Amino acid sequence: MTLPNLSDTIVALSSPPGLGAIAVIRLSGLSAIELADRIFKGKKCSEQASHTAHLGRIEAEDGRMIDEVLATIFKGPHSYTGENTVEISCHGSPYIQQEIIQLCLRTGARLAQPGEFTLRAFLNGKMDLSQAEAVADLIASQSEAAHSVALRQLRGGFKNEIARLRAELISFASLVELELDFGEEDVEFADRADLKNLVLQIKAYIHTLLQSFQLGNALKTGVATVIAGRPNAGKSTLLNALLNEERAIVSDIAGTTRDTIEETLNIKGVQFRLIDTAGIREARDQIEAIGVRKTMEQIELASILVYVWDVAGGMTLRDVHEDLEKLLATTALSLSQTLVVCNKMDRNPHFDTAWLLNTAAPDVHPYLQNEPPGFNSIGLVSGQLVPISAKNAQNIEFLKDKLYETGIGGDLKIEGTVVTNARHHDALRRADAALADVLHGLDSNVTGDFVAQDIRRSLAYLGEITGEIGVEDLLGEIFGKFCIGK
Amino acid sequence: MTLPNLSDTIVALSSPPGLGAIAVIRLSGLSAIELADRIFKGKKCSEQASHTAHLGRIEAEDGRMIDEVLATIFKGPHSYTGENTVEISCHGSPYIQQEIIQLCLRTGARLAQPGEFTLRAFLNGKMDLSQAEAVADLIASQSEAAHSVALRQLRGGFKNEIARLRAELISFASLVELELDFGEEDVEFADRADLKNLVLQIKAYIHTLLQSFQLGNALKTGVATVIAGRPNAGKSTLLNALLNEERAIVSDIAGTTRDTIEETLNIKGVQFRLIDTAGIREARDQIEAIGVRKTMEQIELASILVYVWDVAGGMTLRDVHEDLEKLLATTALSLSQTLVVCNKMDRNPHFDTAWLLNTAAPDVHPYLQNEPPGFNSIGLVSGQLVPISAKNAQNIEFLKDKLYETGIGGDLKIEGTVVTNARHHDALRRADAALADVLHGLDSNVTGDFVAQDIRRSLAYLGEITGEIGVEDLLGEIFGKFCIGK
Repeated sequence: MTLPNLSDTIVALSSPPGLGAIAVIRLSGLSAIELADRIFKGKKCSEQASHTAHLGRIEAEDGRMIDEVLATIFKGPHSYTGENTVEISCHGSPYIQQEIIQLCLRTGARLAQPGEFTLRAFLNGKMDLSQAEAVADLIASQSEAAHSVALRQLRGGFKNEIARLRAELISFASLVELELDFGEEDVEFADRADLKNLVLQIKAYIHTLLQSFQLGNALKTGVATVIAGRPNAGKSTLLNALLNEERAIVSDIAGTTRDTIEETLNIKGVQFRLIDTAGIREARDQIEAIGVRKTMEQIELASILVYVWDVAGGMTLRDVHEDLEKLLATTALSLSQTLVVCNKMDRNPHFDTAWLLNTAAPDVHPYLQNEPPGFNSIGLVSGQLVPISAKNAQNIEFLKDKLYETGIGGDLKIEGTVVTNARHHDALRRADAALADVLHGLDSNVTGDFVAQDIRRSLAYLGEITGEIGVEDLLGEIFGKFCIGK
Repeated sequence: MTLPNLSDTIVALSSPPGLGAIAVIRLSGLSAIELADRIFKGKKCSEQASHTAHLGRIEAEDGRMIDEVLATIFKGPHSYTGENTVEISCHGSPYIQQEIIQLCLRTGARLAQPGEFTLRAFLNGKMDLSQAEAVADLIASQSEAAHSVALRQLRGGFKNEIARLRAELISFASLVELELDFGEEDVEFADRADLKNLVLQIKAYIHTLLQSFQLGNALKTGVATVIAGRPNAGKSTLLNALLNEERAIVSDIAGTTRDTIEETLNIKGVQFRLIDTAGIREARDQIEAIGVRKTMEQIELASILVYVWDVAGGMTLRDVHEDLEKLLATTALSLSQTLVVCNKMDRNPHFDTAWLLNTAAPDVHPYLQNEPPGFNSIGLVSGQLVPISAKNAQNIEFLKDKLYETGIGGDLKIEGTVVTNARHHDALRRADAALADVLHGLDSNVTGDFVAQDIRRSLAYLGEITGEIGVEDLLGEIFGKFCIGK
């Protein structure tokens, strides 16, 4: 990334685009307040105290009034970016927003790049890189869980713990490197047993962090839940029942759903991305073949597979097993991430409604009970079978509980630190590998310079997370994902 | 209208809805600052000076942090509403916006009605009614012209002039009423000649204002421009050429455009609403019949009729006249508001390109020149004929100039006062009628009590504009059109 010129004064619309009562335009940079003075007619901004708001007019070069606005002044370093900042709160007409921004550009500002305000905050030491990334996550958060993990990261997250472990590791590294200065004298300043203990301790912490990533990623981006099954099993009706609305086109004609449909469902504050798919069968035409291939691709990326079984359609549990074996064989998904939804229970005479409505904890599922021994070769357990009637919206809440349990694994407690960022996960993985090399070196009594090298490598990877080390190349990628104005 | 309870503290999202870097939530009311103190953790808002901004956290009742925010405090009467106000600037996630608003509601605020912040500003004497209306117009303004007239009205507009004339009229009314106290004595405190002069002066001013309404309305809502013509004349292609994009579905099959299509085009800062229509002909089926009826309705409401004539399709100017006579006979539109676009000039061998490209001031239009005398019964003049090729985008800029000239009538100078509001126009019309009654009374020497009554009536109508008199019933209608949060 070529860093943008940070001595420029930048401007951008910071409130969401479109029409509203008010809009906020933000100016930041060394000359932001002087620039505001040239377009804002009222009190002189440069003579006002920081954190004060002033009513005035924005006037174009020819004296034409553009709007009556409120200008709030922040003097660096006491601002979001750490620089001089002026927030112009104008009437929320897109026309006025554009006129003011254009005037700022003509007066010497340049349009901010996406995330440039936060990039400047990072470069000016107002936050570390993991916190800057959390700002983008916070803005994108659509559920309580996503919001909670982003906020935790914004407030520090695991950076303090990482910093503490890094500091200890650095002191060991220094001692090991000091030994090198003594060359042939064979001294050991760094206690090898203590060093090994520290490395093991760090590795254990990293493992906890790495393990939290699956959950963290699910909380942040939603739990990918694929709804699959044979044609006309009621997949789209199930999607509608879960969403409580008519989203998918429902018909009695098998093969109605050709494209995959994605909807989000919030269960107890966690977002589930429900992906409806084309029915699995021999594709009759080209378009359907594409649909089936897409289904397989979706399952590959999913966290949960909801297999819909039409229990009134003549299909046996043995058929279900066959389908599941096929689906799971080609994907990384495991059987424990699978729910078999027994749909159309209302139309199956062998099911009594009492059982249907009392499935919270069925001891033995009647279907499993009546099947011949040995049929259940893939090891489906009764808890994975969820009888419902999508059409009559029966047992849908129970299914939601099951989805939550399968996706999150019991009650959600975001207490320890949760890694939600793929970049952090990657850095942690590499740090872990480098630390394994340190351990291996210690065990095989390699010379201090090799050990020191591996420690430095771990330190660098850990430092990448908070941006202390070698992240220049990453900045473009990280801040490019931000919205303009942040 | 039942006025909302104005002692409540109200809350609303004031920035546009959706995702952005930041969002602004506004609290207003007597207890707004105390309410902010209960949810904002940082400095105590109630102990801060007006117009100061403070960094802190919004926390839910259970101490759960919702966001890091900036709270700006405004103490009444020095705020937009005239009441205590707190603006909370939070991260622009829709989830966070909702969480904070919900928390405010739980803490004792109520959701603001549309326009309620501005309604409160009006009721607290921060602006008059015409200025309040200008706020909504300003936010909705999409062009330089609409923005300019709204801003002029916000800054006072004609309210000072109206106020001055009203004050003079009031003093006359008082004198006339004083005469009544003297009963049979036949005194005249109010000089009838002076009164008549004043009424004439006011009427002249009102006439100027009334006349400005057509322009004002066009500037505010856009100049309604109907594109009509026979099937396949190239109406949709013309629309695309004007918009410079593929908006309408274009095909060679006559009758492709069934529904009316409306697009906006900005010509020199003025908005034109281009309304494409179905071709005029004997409708072949039910759907087309509806289309043709719609065309006629659109022309009825239009300010400009652009008739598209396919000059390569065998139609003569005589046919054009016939069509125009038919179209104009049933509508209020006049011939002077009509442009005849001679389309497909590139495919007419009788036209040389040199002429086509040099139409800025053609002396005599060749078509007019060659027609037999007397054919031009409706009086079309050559300046109204605009030769173009929509397909090759030839002469489109010249057509735009012609549209501007026809819609605005020469160069736009918004110098005097322009009435843009239908409610004001209506009140002015009624005031004018009441003043005519005053004049009539004076001329026929009716008794003072009748004159006084008519004067009072005029005063009431004029007072409605700024909201000084009898507007309670109108408030719901006026502020109901605002967006939430303003």
